[in-house]
Order: sequence, then structure tokens, then C-alpha cells
Amino acid sequence: MTAPSLDSAVQSWVSAVLTDEPSPSLSSLLPELAQDLSDIEEHIVSSLRCPYPFLAEAATYATATGGKRLRALLMAVAFRALGATDTAPIQPLAAAIQLIHTATLVHDDVIDHAELRRGKPSVPRAFGLPGAVVGGDYLFVRAFQLAARYTPTIILRCGEACADLAQGEMMQENSRFDLTVGRERYLKIVTLKTASIVSAGLACTAMVREEPSRVDDLAEYGEAVGIAFQIQDDLLDVYGDPDQTGKPLYSDYREGIPTLLSADAHAELTGRERTEFERLFALRRKGPADLMRLRELTDTTTARLRAEREAIRQVERGLGGLRGLPRGPYRDLLERIAKGVIARRY
Amino acid sequence: MTAPSLDSAVQSWVSAVLTDEPSPSLSSLLPELAQDLSDIEEHIVSSLRCPYPFLAEAATYATATGGKRLRALLMAVAFRALGATDTAPIQPLAAAIQLIHTATLVHDDVIDHAELRRGKPSVPRAFGLPGAVVGGDYLFVRAFQLAARYTPTIILRCGEACADLAQGEMMQENSRFDLTVGRERYLKIVTLKTASIVSAGLACTAMVREEPSRVDDLAEYGEAVGIAFQIQDDLLDVYGDPDQTGKPLYSDYREGIPTLLSADAHAELTGRERTEFERLFALRRKGPADLMRLRELTDTTTARLRAEREAIRQVERGLGGLRGLPRGPYRDLLERIAKGVIARRY
Repeated sequence: MTAPSLDSAVQSWVSAVLTDEPSPSLSSLLPELAQDLSDIEEHIVSSLRCPYPFLAEAATYATATGGKRLRALLMAVAFRALGATDTAPIQPLAAAIQLIHTATLVHDDVIDHAELRRGKPSVPRAFGLPGAVVGGDYLFVRAFQLAARYTPTIILRCGEACADLAQGEMMQENSRFDLTVGRERYLKIVTLKTASIVSAGLACTAMVREEPSRVDDLAEYGEAVGIAFQIQDDLLDVYGDPDQTGKPLYSDYREGIPTLLSADAHAELTGRERTEFERLFALRRKGPADLMRLRELTDTTTARLRAEREAIRQVERGLGGLRGLPRGPYRDLLERIAKGVIARRY
Repeated sequence: MTAPSLDSAVQSWVSAVLTDEPSPSLSSLLPELAQDLSDIEEHIVSSLRCPYPFLAEAATYATATGGKRLRALLMAVAFRALGATDTAPIQPLAAAIQLIHTATLVHDDVIDHAELRRGKPSVPRAFGLPGAVVGGDYLFVRAFQLAARYTPTIILRCGEACADLAQGEMMQENSRFDLTVGRERYLKIVTLKTASIVSAGLACTAMVREEPSRVDDLAEYGEAVGIAFQIQDDLLDVYGDPDQTGKPLYSDYREGIPTLLSADAHAELTGRERTEFERLFALRRKGPADLMRLRELTDTTTARLRAEREAIRQVERGLGGLRGLPRGPYRDLLERIAKGVIARRY
């Protein structure tokens, strides 16, 4: 089964984490991991088949809009780091986690009335509101069906992460245009919305391997990497290169989504500048000058530095979780991926 | 645990099916069934608790807007008809089926931009678009968590019914304002959208009782009752008494949802009247005169009679599924409920 796009997804990931220090031993893992991701993709594709073509098409379109497949990759690498030579036992669950992630993106685009997702028409745009609402539900259902073959403990763990996700989404929605959210609440939202499902996926690799002593370590690694990933996303939204990220800058400012950056900047600003920052951030429609001014004000503070530090702190916490794992190239790769998450420019 | 509203739900159901022929033996089942429904409700309520109050509130609000709890009632009665004296083993699954039903209603209201549901503000209206989208997802997630304790076969059966539901929803959405849908496709949509999950819930009661020989019979009973229920709903939408149904008339005409009634009327009408029926049905905004005229045209055909006959045919098919079950008051009650579904006026 060849899947060139996935090959290149792994290629770009692994080469990103290898750039600073080429390592032949890690490069040699590439074909195996590409095969793992390709197998997981096959589970995704076949799980979405159904007799009604419109629904199958909408769901498949949603999964095919690219994405980094970070969740699936981490699960495959972690499973191998635990000594597995074959990722087949974890593949349906990894596919389920990717489908859950995709379902939430589709429903996010419904909530945000988003026109584009990764440069292509969003699912609501391409398949209409019913197609996006029901298509997202369908992705959830297929995910849970993929998870049905696992133990109740595993299903419940993934379910709890989905409940966290819903809570995090709701908290984020209810915090829009509200800069008083603060660092602690931001980290709570990100933990629930982004990190919890990554954490659950990794914890479950240890459960499937029947290595209970590794569950908490891998969960912590997953949570920390998930948070670091989100902070890096937030930073790239302001300081990234749109040619590399493929996304326009300042979408968080524009949509009033508080990030660590804006929360910290707001907390640090005083007097007239703080009031201006608040006023601009609260605007439901922001022009280019408003967005530039928000960035300018952010840059007068130490918020960027503090966000970068928090991301590093999370990665270090994640690496701590790996210490109990057997040494070897896959553990090394998990370390590299964690570091790569905050080194990435896209 | 007392739950007066549920008590009255069972009361009204059971008394509706008993009206024509009072039966002391069936009346005596009432307290037990009220307790079953109350226990199932407790599973629903406790499963929705989570630390973020807004989400828990939205989800609880969605489940609390009434409804007939037909699915849960059927499962409790079927489980007892199979000889169980305690419905505890089936309660979490019955709660899951009710939650899935509720989730789809919430997402339906998102798709339809509905303001009201059973006379109260809809979830999108009361909790906003994000609250309704994410709240619906949350209901799905909690349903699957409730199902996690069952065997993979049971989880997959319910999952497949959810996939059917999504397909049926999509087919219905894509058939809006389209009268060429025809009887066969209507029955397919209703089977997928309404009957499949009722059928799965009933099939699973036999699986939980470990009575494999009853699975298909109860599945057929559930499917037939589900279809009959929907046809009766369609009939009440045109011929019901709004004071009794609590819903305004003609919502299917208004929203362009083809029913057996409109499909058959359309097929039977000819010439100028057919063209007029098509034209009026296709209007995105219909005034009272348009709606009255649609009904008038329907009444010139045998569509109502044919729909009533189809509902009766389905009930008879459902009763056929009960033949293998041990005789007793609960089997009798399943028969009465099937007949009650098409006798009901609300």
C-alpha cells in the first residue's frame, strides 16, 4: 500500500526533527513509520465507507485535507518504543483518535463559519451545513466503532478525553474576546481541548501493550507535547511565515481567541496601552491596522519570551515522562518529536 | 428516586394503549416500568455531569425537554419480556440510546435553525451555536461511554445504527423540497433515520440477556415499530390536533420534508394539480394559504389511507417478531405499545 502524501508527511516531520543533528539510526526508521501511517490511513479510509455516497464523500474529504497526523505518528512510535515490532494492534485506535480530531475540526468550522481549512474549502463550505454537522457526527461514530474492539478501560479513557475536548471547546468559545482569561485558564483550556486526546492515545498504547507501569508516563509525555504543540501553533499564528505555515497570520487575534501570548501581553501591559489592547482585541471585526497594532503591543512585552519558555518547560516535562522507557531509537525519536514540535516553523 | 414527569410519561403511554380495553394485569406493570424509566433517567443525568457547568447544563437541558422516552420504555419492556426481573443490566444501554436520540435532535435543530423544540427554546437558541454543536457531540460521547461496558458486538451494533442514522439524516436533507423521492426511498430514509436505532436497542436487549435466537425477532419488532411511529408522526403533522401534539401543523410541508403522505399524494395527482402540488411544496417560504392548499390537494388523493395502511402493515410485521417470545404480560404490553404507536393522537 503506497501513500505518497503520508510518506511526505513523515518525511517532513522526521526530517524536521533531524535537521539540526542528522542521525542515520533515526533515518532508518522512516520506511517503517511511513508504512505504519499508511496502514492507519487504510483503517481510516475503510471505516468511512458506507452506502450513501454523499456522507462517505464528506467524511473522506474531511480526513483528506492533509494535517500532520501527529497523533497517529506519536502512537505508532510510542508503541514501537515499548518494544512492539508490529503496530497492527494499535492501528484501529490510532485511526479512531485521528477521526475524533477530524470530527472536532469539522464542527469547529461549523461554529466559526469557516470558509477554508488548510487552504481548501472547509467541509461546511464544500458540503453545506447539514453535511458538516452530520458528517462530523459520522466521523465520531466511526471512531467509536474502531475503538469498540478494545477493553472498556481503553474505550472509557478515550471517551473521557473526548468529553475533555468538548469542555475545552466550550470554555474556549465562552472566553472569546475576553483577555482576562489569564495564563492558568489558558493552560486548562489547552490541556482539555488539545492535549487530553493526545495524552489518552499515548496512554492507551501502553494499555494495549499491557504495560500498566508505562501508562502514566506516556500520558504525561502526550499531555506535555500536546500543550507545547498548541503554544507553538499560537506563536506561529503571530510570528510564523504564512508561506511555511500555509495559514494567514493573526487568526487568533482576529477571532478573539485568547492565547498564552495575548493573555500574558495583556497581563503585562499597563495604563493606556492595556486599554487599547483590550479594546482592539474585543473588536468583532478587525482591520489590518488593528491586527498590526495588537502585534506591536504584544511585542512591547515579554509575552513571546514567556510563551517560548512555557513551551520549552512543557517539552522538558514530556521528556521526563520518557525516562522510564527502554532506551533505543524509538525512544530517541519520541524525544526528537517533542523537541521538533516547538522547533517547527509550519 | 421519584420522577413525577416520567411517571406521567409512562402513565400516559400505558393508559393510551389501555384505553380501548382496560386490562388490570397490564396496569399492574405500571409502577415497575415507572421505576425502570426513573433508573434509566438517573443514568442519563449522572453521565452528563462534568466540571464545566455550561456544557453540563446545555446537555442536561437537551435531555430534559421532555420526549416520550419510547426507546427506553421499549427496551425495558422487552428485557422483562425476555424473563428478566431486574432491568439494571440494560439501563446504561437504554440511557445511551436516549442520549444518541437527543444528540441528533440537538444537531437537527442546528441544521434547521430551529427556535423551538417541544414548545421550549431549542438548544441552539438557549445555548448558542457552539453550545449546540459541542453539546450534541458531548451527548454522543457520553452515550458511547455508557455503551463501553457492553460487548464489542453490542457496541458495534449500536454504532452501526448511529451510522445508519447519519446516512438517513443526510438522505433526508438531500431530498428536501423534492417530491420525486417516492415511497421506497421514503421508507429507506425512515428505516435509517428513525427505526434503525430503535431496532438496535431492542436487538441488544436480547444480546444482553444472552438469547441469540431472539435478536432478529426483536430487531424486526423495533424496526417496524420505529417506522410505524414515524408514519404516525407524519400523519399527525397534517391531521393531528395541535392542542394534543403540542406542535403546529404542517411543519413537514413547511420545511419541504417529503413524507409517505406527500410522496404518495404527489404520485397520485395528475396534470395541473400535480404541477401545483410540486410548485407549492418546493416553495422555501410558504404562507398559510399554501399550506392549506397542500393539505387540500393531499386530501383529494388516497395518500392518507395508504399511509395509515402502511403503518398498520408495519405494526403487523412488528407483532410477527414477538411471536417467538414467551407469552406473558410484558409480551402483551409490547403488542399494545406497537398498536398504541399508531393509535396515539400526540
